[in-house]
Amino acid sequence: MSQSSNADGELARLRDIVRQFVDERDWDQFHTPKNLSSALSVEAAELLEHFQWLQKGDAAELGEAKLQEVRHEMADVLVYLIRLADKLDVDLHAAVLEKMVLNRAKYPADLVRGDMRKYNEYKSR
Amino acid sequence: MSQSSNADGELARLRDIVRQFVDERDWDQFHTPKNLSSALSVEAAELLEHFQWLQKGDAAELGEAKLQEVRHEMADVLVYLIRLADKLDVDLHAAVLEKMVLNRAKYPADLVRGDMRKYNEYKSR
Amino acid sequence: MSQSSNADGELARLRDIVRQFVDERDWDQFHTPKNLSSALSVEAAELLEHFQWLQKGDAAELGEAKLQEVRHEMADVLVYLIRLADKLDVDLHAAVLEKMVLNRAKYPADLVRGDMRKYNEYKSR
Amino acid sequence: MSQSSNADGELARLRDIVRQFVDERDWDQFHTPKNLSSALSVEAAELLEHFQWLQKGDAAELGEAKLQEVRHEMADVLVYLIRLADKLDVDLHAAVLEKMVLNRAKYPADLVRGDMRKYNEYKSR
Repeated sequence: MSQSSNADGELARLRDIVRQFVDERDWDQFHTPKNLSSALSVEAAELLEHFQWLQKGDAAELGEAKLQEVRHEMADVLVYLIRLADKLDVDLHAAVLEKMVLNRAKYPADLVRGDMRKYNEYKSR
Repeated sequence: MSQSSNADGELARLRDIVRQFVDERDWDQFHTPKNLSSALSVEAAELLEHFQWLQKGDAAELGEAKLQEVRHEMADVLVYLIRLADKLDVDLHAAVLEKMVLNRAKYPADLVRGDMRKYNEYKSR
Repeated sequence: MSQSSNADGELARLRDIVRQFVDERDWDQFHTPKNLSSALSVEAAELLEHFQWLQKGDAAELGEAKLQEVRHEMADVLVYLIRLADKLDVDLHAAVLEKMVLNRAKYPADLVRGDMRKYNEYKSR
Repeated sequence: MSQSSNADGELARLRDIVRQFVDERDWDQFHTPKNLSSALSVEAAELLEHFQWLQKGDAAELGEAKLQEVRHEMADVLVYLIRLADKLDVDLHAAVLEKMVLNRAKYPADLVRGDMRKYNEYKSR
């Protein structure tokens, strides 16, 4: 099966749903990439807020009600990311595939196994 | 075509690619939801950094080289979001569909057209 | 000794140093409150990045070199906060004193001792 | 007048007020540097949220009520920054003075006047 992006793929369908939502509200005028990247950061922080005082934040520690809120914050993050991709004509699926190739080069499994330093901190090994 | 999530959908395939990348590096031990939500916020801010001094940040203002960097930051955001969803067993596609239903109720098109106030600021109208 | 703000206070002196730095570079034109709040968020995330995979991030776990980087990121956060306060004519010292009064009302010590829930989650107790 | 830090300085006094607030609530146990840097990022994003759909976010565009909320978010940012500095034994005033020296070297006024590129983007000039 091809891993190339698909006009009928999930992300394209979500993009269309979000686009319609925005158009019905005449909100496109506010959706500059600059504003959308701010909104994305704000949603990411609202997600982080749920975890900030927890130990690990796994499903058991969150509990049912919090997990539901977390799911919705995750959705908000994805909605703004999809919207930003729409405005910049970025294919998110292709971008991830491409970035994962770069990540494999930057973090060779043999070098970094079990270690979370940043790629530029491995140089001295 | 059904809009329900699909085990063969794009997001599920990306999740598997990311999961394999993590497993090969024995990084799952670091991937608590708490840590992943921090990493997601950090990537969202790296994305925002590209836009902070621009006027609107559209493709023309960014330029080719910056747009490529932006694409990669967007990929990083999606990778951590997918990874967090994997750890919390969240179906991102279903979560967005569900959240968009809530958004339609919170922001009725007739009420909010052309207006970006937060939903709780419409009460007094 | 009075705790009211002081024109000769540390924060006012730092504000003047930052203001001069900006003026010498003709950067005031970029320093809208909107842009400064983005820059502040980005710096806060660069600070967070140092801690995201650590256990607690105390001085011993950070190590000398990382702690120095952390100090500089903290300085960046304060510089942008001071700059934003300058542009909005906010007295940071007075704002903190005022906010701490509100915090004392929102989080009565007897109610919240040893508990980190958000203030609006105490209602049901 | 010396610009060195002062045990009686504003920042030291605010640190003591925050420290007492925390101790009365037995919250020190939650205040790892890791958690505090998350909380700082979350507060910075709450501040950013007020500006995300505005043009410039100056006092006139914000309006009186929003400006008051913004002041309180700015106070929250400073409170967490002061608290983090306390836990890591960082002198914020000294750190800013030190960082401004580095900034002057990184961004020579003659080179960067009226230009907001990152320091590492000036190389090719």
